[in-house]
Amino acid sequence: MRRLPDLTDSFPGPFPVSPHAPHVQAQLEEWLTRYPLIGSERARHALCDITAHGIARTFPTADAAGLEIAADLLLWLTAFDDAHAEQEGARDPAALVRRIAAFLRPGADGELPGGTDPFGAALADVLARARRRAAPEQYVRLTSALRDSLYGLVWEAHELAGGGRVEVADYRAMRPHTVFVRTVVATAEPVLGYTLTPDERDARPVRELESAVGDLAGWINDLASYERERKRSGGRDPFSLPALLAAEHGCDVDKAFEMIAAMCEEEARRARARITELTAPDSASSTATATHARALESIAASYVWHIGHGRYGG
Amino acid sequence: MRRLPDLTDSFPGPFPVSPHAPHVQAQLEEWLTRYPLIGSERARHALCDITAHGIARTFPTADAAGLEIAADLLLWLTAFDDAHAEQEGARDPAALVRRIAAFLRPGADGELPGGTDPFGAALADVLARARRRAAPEQYVRLTSALRDSLYGLVWEAHELAGGGRVEVADYRAMRPHTVFVRTVVATAEPVLGYTLTPDERDARPVRELESAVGDLAGWINDLASYERERKRSGGRDPFSLPALLAAEHGCDVDKAFEMIAAMCEEEARRARARITELTAPDSASSTATATHARALESIAASYVWHIGHGRYGG
Repeated sequence: MRRLPDLTDSFPGPFPVSPHAPHVQAQLEEWLTRYPLIGSERARHALCDITAHGIARTFPTADAAGLEIAADLLLWLTAFDDAHAEQEGARDPAALVRRIAAFLRPGADGELPGGTDPFGAALADVLARARRRAAPEQYVRLTSALRDSLYGLVWEAHELAGGGRVEVADYRAMRPHTVFVRTVVATAEPVLGYTLTPDERDARPVRELESAVGDLAGWINDLASYERERKRSGGRDPFSLPALLAAEHGCDVDKAFEMIAAMCEEEARRARARITELTAPDSASSTATATHARALESIAASYVWHIGHGRYGG
Repeated sequence: MRRLPDLTDSFPGPFPVSPHAPHVQAQLEEWLTRYPLIGSERARHALCDITAHGIARTFPTADAAGLEIAADLLLWLTAFDDAHAEQEGARDPAALVRRIAAFLRPGADGELPGGTDPFGAALADVLARARRRAAPEQYVRLTSALRDSLYGLVWEAHELAGGGRVEVADYRAMRPHTVFVRTVVATAEPVLGYTLTPDERDARPVRELESAVGDLAGWINDLASYERERKRSGGRDPFSLPALLAAEHGCDVDKAFEMIAAMCEEEARRARARITELTAPDSASSTATATHARALESIAASYVWHIGHGRYGG
């Protein structure tokens, strides 16, 4: 049994869960009836289930409409990744580039108007709802993070097509985009209804917290999904941190798991220290900063929660 | 002699020129000494010359520091396009994707922190200055437009590598990104110091004006650069509107030039009508909207001016 990180000191759980989880799951199923992003009924149910339960931990205090937006967007990214990026993208990177280009047609300000296939139409639907809810700056920030997530998929497809030998530093830099955590973080303000000032957003503890949660999300996902991805790609090493770190250090994957588990524990400690600092009763932080820190805490918790979930089980 | 559009009715000129043009040209030369983006001295001087004189018409009323930012950013995009996109990008699209990925590393909010090669360092420099000058929303909007410009180059490289046969509608949709006009438009607010409200930004005449100027910029560029691009690619049709339109209509390039010239004249009339409407003394438009319309007028004028300039001469 490979070592998984023990994050109970930093993120002990149990994690708060939104009471809207069942509603969101039903709404996701309905959304996928309107926008058929996933062919297999079994895969559809599984993705609605894990997305609803994950997002209910990501934003446990969100109202139902906000949680629906966050859930739809995350499900859209996951379904798009499954259908058109990953293996499919690596087989034909140019097709992926063209498909994403269709989302970038100049339209309304910051708008990604979509195109006419189900993915384009579904994206236009969820973004229109996000736009109505968000302040203009929040919306541009969200679509900017989404652009980076999509660019991350393009990058990943090309690296995969080229054999998947990238330096660990380059992989680590892109991983927060490809795991979508930056887009999830960008949804927090409009979904939870707070606004950071520029100074609050730039404050060093906030930046460090976002960085730690970004790393943690990607690395946890890489560990938790390793066996599943290996099976999917016919026994080859997946394009993820364990294999890249093993190659760079000349060690085996078990040893790489050890190292990554320790890295996760360290990032979790960093995140926890910043959360404690930013939410302390006697802290100089504003209410918005404390709310943001709590949002990042629950975003991290949702990834920690994923370690034990079926989609990623070995 | 192929027909070029006659835009004198809509954009009669002479176009106002910033008094800072010589200063900006000297500053560009200095900037390229610090950031050696262009190897050939002759090419460097030529690009500094046309960028300074073009941008001096794009933002004739800007202050010197604002004009420097706009000039550096436009020069950066042009130099990056020449060095790493276009032919080079088509030869190795994956290398272009990786190079742009290095600009997208998560850093400060909306920041594109660059990487360590001259292009990364130069981009970080100009964006840091833009960020100090811009409101947070303006800055995110600018880097979002810049992301789209870079994505446009990725798209173009893949289409070129795949033979360059795309539908005219798809080409037209991406052209405002690849000609960088959307990024130029996004610099207007921070450079000229005005701010549109969300309602002003979404107003139909404003959207139509931006769309007309976006189309006009790309089409003018395609006509004006046709012979130059053809020579550069060894006599093959460049990846631009004349060849694509000729292929789609089964006509020759001369006829396509006729059609595009007429399209340009029509877009110029659309743009002029909206500018007149938005800047009329008895208009209901706000001061910011009128300033924005004037900015789009001079942005369009700078592309009209390019028709006659040496870089694009047949």
